[in-house]
Amino acid sequence: MSRIAYVNGRYLPKRLAAVNVEDRGLQFGDGVYEVVTVQDGRFVDEDLHLDRLERSLREIRIPMPMPRGSLRQVLAEVVRRNRVRHGLCYMQVTRGVAPRDHPFPRKPVPPGLMVTAKNLAGYPADVDAWAAKAILYPDQRWERRDIKSTNLLPNVLAKQAAREAGAAEAILYDEATCLVTEGASTSFWIVDEEGALRTRHLSNAILPGCTRAALMQELREAGIPWREEPFTVEQTRRAREAFVTSATSYVRPIVALDGQPVGDGRVGPVTRRLFEIFGRHVKGAARNAA
Amino acid sequence: MSRIAYVNGRYLPKRLAAVNVEDRGLQFGDGVYEVVTVQDGRFVDEDLHLDRLERSLREIRIPMPMPRGSLRQVLAEVVRRNRVRHGLCYMQVTRGVAPRDHPFPRKPVPPGLMVTAKNLAGYPADVDAWAAKAILYPDQRWERRDIKSTNLLPNVLAKQAAREAGAAEAILYDEATCLVTEGASTSFWIVDEEGALRTRHLSNAILPGCTRAALMQELREAGIPWREEPFTVEQTRRAREAFVTSATSYVRPIVALDGQPVGDGRVGPVTRRLFEIFGRHVKGAARNAA
Repeated sequence: MSRIAYVNGRYLPKRLAAVNVEDRGLQFGDGVYEVVTVQDGRFVDEDLHLDRLERSLREIRIPMPMPRGSLRQVLAEVVRRNRVRHGLCYMQVTRGVAPRDHPFPRKPVPPGLMVTAKNLAGYPADVDAWAAKAILYPDQRWERRDIKSTNLLPNVLAKQAAREAGAAEAILYDEATCLVTEGASTSFWIVDEEGALRTRHLSNAILPGCTRAALMQELREAGIPWREEPFTVEQTRRAREAFVTSATSYVRPIVALDGQPVGDGRVGPVTRRLFEIFGRHVKGAARNAA
Repeated sequence: MSRIAYVNGRYLPKRLAAVNVEDRGLQFGDGVYEVVTVQDGRFVDEDLHLDRLERSLREIRIPMPMPRGSLRQVLAEVVRRNRVRHGLCYMQVTRGVAPRDHPFPRKPVPPGLMVTAKNLAGYPADVDAWAAKAILYPDQRWERRDIKSTNLLPNVLAKQAAREAGAAEAILYDEATCLVTEGASTSFWIVDEEGALRTRHLSNAILPGCTRAALMQELREAGIPWREEPFTVEQTRRAREAFVTSATSYVRPIVALDGQPVGDGRVGPVTRRLFEIFGRHVKGAARNAA
């Protein structure tokens, strides 16, 4: 748990880290966030996350709370004060505090910025132990899923349904088309029944995953082909392999869907290789930055 | 503006009224809210709002933060401490404070409760001055709009688009079907080109409006017929009259849509009559409760 949090200019013990009841992040979900992994005390893919933060803010017209260089310093300071070696750093930016009214405040107010950090295990040693179960669940989210907003109630309900089914993730699909979108907090990939590595193309229907993008760069360098195109729930059920990616899931095998094995129910060769490649990326990022 | 707010058991000056950065309302939009009008120091349709609060909480499995009788006392106390004669009382319930993780906290935590109140003008004297313009705007919200959650970013963006077009409300429609759902913070009604009073039927596509329900009860008592059925953007553009309802809009005429007059661009006879009827409801509610 974060012991020290940064809130609107101050580093505070967590129990005192608070925002006003009229912060628009609380009353309207009027804000965005990012989660960055820390490995060996260094950020993994920090620039990808800060690029996406700036994009999300631009899309909903909230200014950056401070220049990127200053924000990097705040993130590093929160990590340092919480003595995080392996873990994550969470940042949230809101439109700020103003008397409650749906439209943006007429007189602009400073955006809110909250940053926390906590320790977690580092990159998993054992991909078989890292494998997880998932469920399929209707995608009930709004139409701008490309914006990493804190309007996360549909994600919360999907994740809770997963947990109650003994699973770690909910793989979301559009009920009208039966096309899979992504995981409730992850990008989703399959090795289809012909052996093709696939993940859905970017659009307003999914979040542009930073780990998704970082893995694609690794695939390019390793000469591993993949396709960005939608696939159905049925194609997912017939897939040889499946896995999710995210800052804190890295490459995580999905070996069961709705209680049925994916492929033979064990971690497949493609997923196993990508887990290894991404491990080198995560640890290399830490090394390069050091 | 609320000078005194109730937050998790304490009445606090507004600048000190704060919630922890790990409140799930802030990080996940994991909560619901209500706005109740105050007229002559009394709540209007309080039971309808508390019924809906309980329903919203039930749908996302957050317990009531306290029994309804105690909650009523808190609301009344916030109104009293803020010396509100005519105005509104805002209440928000969140799933509470817990280390950030999408599913519900494994060990339940107490729900968060925040209540504010502020003065506003009372029921408008002049329906013509109360008339407003609106725009039509795509409905980008999630699929459980029947839950009054704080996942309001799509509503915020729609309301801002309305303001920038010189309008007070955005009337939302489904892009696939061109069927109107409701206003960004109101229920929406038309008198169609045949003279029929219509509003959309209840489903997951719209919020079950308390003012909508209260007005229907008044219609019933006055013997005024209406139909609950969807209508298209085109039918809306051809409507004789249009109006919105909400706790703070009461019955508010919409006399222009996207810059074009609705009917002859003036408040029509049906809307005028319903404004008068609802005024008696609002003032009568205050009288009856007094």
